[in-house]
Amino acid sequence: MISIDLNADLGEGFGRWQLTDDEQLLSVVTSANVACGFHAGDAATMRKVCELAAERGVRVGAQVSYRDLAGFGRRAMDVPPDELTAEVAYQIGALEVFARAAGTRVSYVKPHGALYNRVVHDEEQAAAVVDGVVLADATLPVLGLPGSRFLKVAERAGLPAVTEAFADRAYTDQGTLVPRGQGGAVITDADAVVERSVDLARTGTVVSHSGERIPVRARSLCLHGDTPGAVELARRVRAELAASGVPVEAFA
Amino acid sequence: MISIDLNADLGEGFGRWQLTDDEQLLSVVTSANVACGFHAGDAATMRKVCELAAERGVRVGAQVSYRDLAGFGRRAMDVPPDELTAEVAYQIGALEVFARAAGTRVSYVKPHGALYNRVVHDEEQAAAVVDGVVLADATLPVLGLPGSRFLKVAERAGLPAVTEAFADRAYTDQGTLVPRGQGGAVITDADAVVERSVDLARTGTVVSHSGERIPVRARSLCLHGDTPGAVELARRVRAELAASGVPVEAFA
Amino acid sequence: MISIDLNADLGEGFGRWQLTDDEQLLSVVTSANVACGFHAGDAATMRKVCELAAERGVRVGAQVSYRDLAGFGRRAMDVPPDELTAEVAYQIGALEVFARAAGTRVSYVKPHGALYNRVVHDEEQAAAVVDGVVLADATLPVLGLPGSRFLKVAERAGLPAVTEAFADRAYTDQGTLVPRGQGGAVITDADAVVERSVDLARTGTVVSHSGERIPVRARSLCLHGDTPGAVELARRVRAELAASGVPVEAFA
Amino acid sequence: MISIDLNADLGEGFGRWQLTDDEQLLSVVTSANVACGFHAGDAATMRKVCELAAERGVRVGAQVSYRDLAGFGRRAMDVPPDELTAEVAYQIGALEVFARAAGTRVSYVKPHGALYNRVVHDEEQAAAVVDGVVLADATLPVLGLPGSRFLKVAERAGLPAVTEAFADRAYTDQGTLVPRGQGGAVITDADAVVERSVDLARTGTVVSHSGERIPVRARSLCLHGDTPGAVELARRVRAELAASGVPVEAFA
Repeated sequence: MISIDLNADLGEGFGRWQLTDDEQLLSVVTSANVACGFHAGDAATMRKVCELAAERGVRVGAQVSYRDLAGFGRRAMDVPPDELTAEVAYQIGALEVFARAAGTRVSYVKPHGALYNRVVHDEEQAAAVVDGVVLADATLPVLGLPGSRFLKVAERAGLPAVTEAFADRAYTDQGTLVPRGQGGAVITDADAVVERSVDLARTGTVVSHSGERIPVRARSLCLHGDTPGAVELARRVRAELAASGVPVEAFA
Repeated sequence: MISIDLNADLGEGFGRWQLTDDEQLLSVVTSANVACGFHAGDAATMRKVCELAAERGVRVGAQVSYRDLAGFGRRAMDVPPDELTAEVAYQIGALEVFARAAGTRVSYVKPHGALYNRVVHDEEQAAAVVDGVVLADATLPVLGLPGSRFLKVAERAGLPAVTEAFADRAYTDQGTLVPRGQGGAVITDADAVVERSVDLARTGTVVSHSGERIPVRARSLCLHGDTPGAVELARRVRAELAASGVPVEAFA
Repeated sequence: MISIDLNADLGEGFGRWQLTDDEQLLSVVTSANVACGFHAGDAATMRKVCELAAERGVRVGAQVSYRDLAGFGRRAMDVPPDELTAEVAYQIGALEVFARAAGTRVSYVKPHGALYNRVVHDEEQAAAVVDGVVLADATLPVLGLPGSRFLKVAERAGLPAVTEAFADRAYTDQGTLVPRGQGGAVITDADAVVERSVDLARTGTVVSHSGERIPVRARSLCLHGDTPGAVELARRVRAELAASGVPVEAFA
Repeated sequence: MISIDLNADLGEGFGRWQLTDDEQLLSVVTSANVACGFHAGDAATMRKVCELAAERGVRVGAQVSYRDLAGFGRRAMDVPPDELTAEVAYQIGALEVFARAAGTRVSYVKPHGALYNRVVHDEEQAAAVVDGVVLADATLPVLGLPGSRFLKVAERAGLPAVTEAFADRAYTDQGTLVPRGQGGAVITDADAVVERSVDLARTGTVVSHSGERIPVRARSLCLHGDTPGAVELARRVRAELAASGVPVEAFA
């Protein structure tokens, strides 16, 4: 049985504003995607999350984003490649200070929001993000969607490419995510999410939107932490995985 | 003869806006105070300045600031210590990525503008900045005003404290700077600036506002790069120092 | 019996982040201090709050702030007067668009957070804020602390000066607020807050920190909306005022 | 002979950074596209430009942009329509304060940079911008490219749609601009720009990239103010138009 990693977005407040329940999530996940100040994440929060993650042995990753606090990084932007590369490296470097001070390291990079979606298909931006990662540390794994341009470009550049799946998102028969706008795109039934999580981890397959069982190879499951009940659901997923004999641990 | 370091602020544009003539200044100074994005300095510019500095053997320092693009870091802010500490570390970490990628390192830290002036007297903010430097790297030298709280707190924390002087600023008999508002505070005559530079470097003294010769111990001279004729003046200062037998080199 | 106005800060989210329960608060207050984008308040939220306020007959005020999203406007800043004046006017103008579109107007101005506290004593910044209000509309009332420099300067400039009191803050014998750092500065007992509200409105007096009954003339009471139970407490205050025969209505 | 309007972008500095020579440009143009703080244009600069424009009888327009200081508004963004609408209205309202205080009014709206280009083809964003203008003032003219979705949507909404042309840009045979990337897209020869300006104003035609004479109906010519020699070139254009008997005045 291959082990599974659980990742979630953390530290997504900014100054006075809070969003994610970082303390609780850190008791569930094995990898923490820490916001680096561009879509969320003030410096003091970044420091705090790194300290908490290090205490609990949770791996720290840089959740890099477009520079867009007003839009929470959810608005795709046509950023020229050299700017995007530099902005990605900047964010990784800023987080690395807090990770090191807490006795750990930035151990992977995951793009956030609109950037995550853009680099699934956009070769230029995918390459720009990869260049930014390489600039910071040419050995850093990146987390992304199976089959994405991003992971392909990352592998070409020698970066370990780690695939992830979403237990609360519907998949097409081709193994891509059903777009958020469409009916049934997001699975809100908690039991179904738990069941799909175990399915994904144990079998490497999931039942698609149309009812087909399709392969979805993923070494990490992405849990969401910004909705009511999110932490409770995350706990259930972790408990069921353990009960099903699936080791839950950070990807190698 | 003790050698003298020449430092100047660089990379102080932001996106479309340019301010400092980085290429020219890098052919004169031995230490580059690179803006880190909080008062100026977009990520692509930071990268570029680090590359140019590394090529020319100029030392890279982090010019850390209050978060204040609109005010160019010139407006004092009552930032709580833990926020200030984290923001200082964040900026150093972000710059370190580009310094390392260029084959060099962040080798010192100098506060910018209102923060520089504030930590001359404000013990709490001085300590917060020092804590931020220590968080990033407990061996980093800091650059500041002789006699400032900042340098005292830094030394207490084990950081090498490097003093600097301003050849284009008038000094009181007590060795502090004549405040900018007062008449004669800024010396605009180029010949006088060159002469005072050599004086400061050779003798460790300068003629005060009232005509007294007073001691001003400085291992670095701060040159200004954002005024017309600044680069030309910087060149003359460096040439005269060399002609006077003063070695110009980065502080040890 | 003189009527009393109830004001609260609204629209203090930013993009993805929420803070105040605007819908509920608008069913209680008579004046809404709407954040204008400098410490909080994205444009879409400003529009929404204006629409809701207009529907419910709640007066719209501009809650102007230092430009400081990261610090939520709670960090005092040494902003030069001409910049502060322009920034205040800018915020009022931006809000006015949404107020007018909703069929109402910006009817008063209240500084936020650190700016509110600063202009209690700082003549220069008080004058700069007043200049900004006059620039936008020389007939706009301003809301502030009785005895503050801000209200004095405003009156001198011909602006109606409206005093406000805080039922959940302790007062000194001199009628100033006990600073937040000190013990007992904030009154958390809900019954006490309700009682003091009625006291302030009916008698124009309140019992000070030392037990003296002191005069606190206020035409408006400031209610807080960003703490758990805030809306419920605000409702109780309004109900008790009404039950005590105090008309609750926007200041004239 | 129909008169021609000359418009240019002004006030495109931010805080410490300057870009456009506002004083000189205001002695040439009849319409000033004033940056409103989202891609450039701090509040104090907006005030100053409005005052200078009013003194010289130059019409003030709101140059609205994506919220993107780091990218100078040159990076297309997928902003949801309701956010874009509110952001456009916000900017117009902020500028209106300074225009009124200076004794004039915001008299038209022109999108900036990437937003300008996007609304040529993007119906959704074009409609969102138009909605923002209507929210602010349903009688405001908008300035844009002939044939653009933006002008079509604006006309449908009852806004006066004013067409503009670029004397320093090459046109295709279809009357669209040759994209900046392509050879010859930007005309740098000053004599050619002057000649094309007169041609456009007098005949309503211009010679296309391929040598065809094509119709380009424009009531305004856009002059660029951020390049060396820009002011001098603008002066020549205005002088030649006058010498050719073309009245230079703001569009009706």
